[in-house]
Amino acid sequence: MAASSEIEEGLALQPRFDADGLVTAVVTDAASGDVLMVAHMNARALAKTIETGEAHYYSRSRKKLWRKGEESGHTQRVIEMRVDCDQDAVWLRVEQAGPGACHTGRRSCFYRVVALGQTGEVTLAFRDAERAFDPAAAYRGKP
Amino acid sequence: MAASSEIEEGLALQPRFDADGLVTAVVTDAASGDVLMVAHMNARALAKTIETGEAHYYSRSRKKLWRKGEESGHTQRVIEMRVDCDQDAVWLRVEQAGPGACHTGRRSCFYRVVALGQTGEVTLAFRDAERAFDPAAAYRGKP
Repeated sequence: MAASSEIEEGLALQPRFDADGLVTAVVTDAASGDVLMVAHMNARALAKTIETGEAHYYSRSRKKLWRKGEESGHTQRVIEMRVDCDQDAVWLRVEQAGPGACHTGRRSCFYRVVALGQTGEVTLAFRDAERAFDPAAAYRGKP
Repeated sequence: MAASSEIEEGLALQPRFDADGLVTAVVTDAASGDVLMVAHMNARALAKTIETGEAHYYSRSRKKLWRKGEESGHTQRVIEMRVDCDQDAVWLRVEQAGPGACHTGRRSCFYRVVALGQTGEVTLAFRDAERAFDPAAAYRGKP
């Protein structure tokens, strides 16, 4: 394993994959700055994203590489990609094609807020939760 | 386990912790929108953050709950907290106290870009990598 200083201060990409072979990908809208989604990348998804400039992820539920939008058409063109200090997370600033990034039909996966100051059972409230597209049509009923 | 529809469309916080009991926390600067860091929360860190409005995380390396800034003074006041569709990630928009969020002394942990179009060995370039503070002083030499 590379030394901590090399990972933090070096200019070689040395992703620190977790036990499942994944790094975390945070995806923000290059125009609005909003967080659209959080996903995961294996080595192949990372390489394909860097090579093509189109966002690829690894689906933990379907256990396969996945080009974002391959089914829905809601692709993501990467405007800028960054890696964090310990190289276990990447940040993608993307141009989101189509109305939204979330499989539920919203622009962003983060359509509920958690009010602060709560203890015990915690309740949410919808925020920016209008559906931008019909997920049943976009994904033909698949999740 | 709650039904998928309840997790995605319900108004109860039902965090889906991973095998290590953690959810992912994406932290953005409420002023600039930049991603400052990615961290993890266990149930206790999540509850403390919600209750107090001050960001708490779980340190996987030190295996303990950690109030951001408890040592450096670089605390994070949560302006807004959101949860994603499948409730395994939260997004915190924070007011970052002090010059930076990263233990290396930068404002953000994402101070290196990955140029697109590369294949094979991938190189990085520094971006916004000026140190905003002296990490040795802020953390008294601890990582």
